[in-house]
Formats: sequence, C-alpha cells, structure tokens
Amino acid sequence: MQHQFTVKGMTCGHCERAVVHAVREVDTDAIVRVDLASGQVSVDSEKSRDAIANAIREEGYEVAA
Amino acid sequence: MQHQFTVKGMTCGHCERAVVHAVREVDTDAIVRVDLASGQVSVDSEKSRDAIANAIREEGYEVAA
Repeated sequence: MQHQFTVKGMTCGHCERAVVHAVREVDTDAIVRVDLASGQVSVDSEKSRDAIANAIREEGYEVAA
Repeated sequence: MQHQFTVKGMTCGHCERAVVHAVREVDTDAIVRVDLASGQVSVDSEKSRDAIANAIREEGYEVAA
C-alpha cells in the first residue's frame, strides 16, 4: 500500500534518517522516500496509515496530511 | 582549556548531538555545551582548538570562528 504524508519539522539529513528509522520500526520491510525540502514522505507498507503516522509523530515530527 | 566556536549548519537536536559526539571522539572527557539557536559551541578540553574545530568540520558543519 502506498501512503503519502506531509511531515513538518524535518530540518536536516539527521531528521530524514530519524523519520525513516521510525517508519522501519513499525515495518522493517517498508520502502520509505523522503523529500526533505517539501516534507513529502512516501511509504510503501502493508501497515496502516495511522500506524505509520503515529510512529512519525512519536519521533517528534508533525504529520500534516 | 576553554574553546569557543561559532558553528553554522546546526538545524536541530540531531545536529547538536552529532557535534557533541564529534568532539567527544577527539576527547572523551570534553565538556561540550551547544546553544543551537546561536550556534555557539563551548568546549572544555585539553585538546587543541584546531583538533576540535576539524572534528566539527569533518562532521559536516562550518566552524566560523
């Protein structure tokens, strides 16, 4: 399943990695793409959109949409 | 010895930690204080100013002064 998120608060490559790792903790097989400049995060995963969004939020980032 | 640096490019808490860790790799006993907003990094260390500045630069940050 393809999930698309707009994530706020990612400022640097460390943030990008933190978000990717947060998603991978929910689903080790997830394919995660991050566009830092736009905040667009796309996730290929069988997990629910909510589960992934919550993992990103728990990492300290705002999931806007 | 007290060294004071102005470091550019630190955007978030991850960056702050990356700088602290970079300094600690040069001197495990260093006391490092980072003010993220101003970029001020103060280091108590017996290592040379150059050695510490280089470690911060190698981590990918600009040491301005």
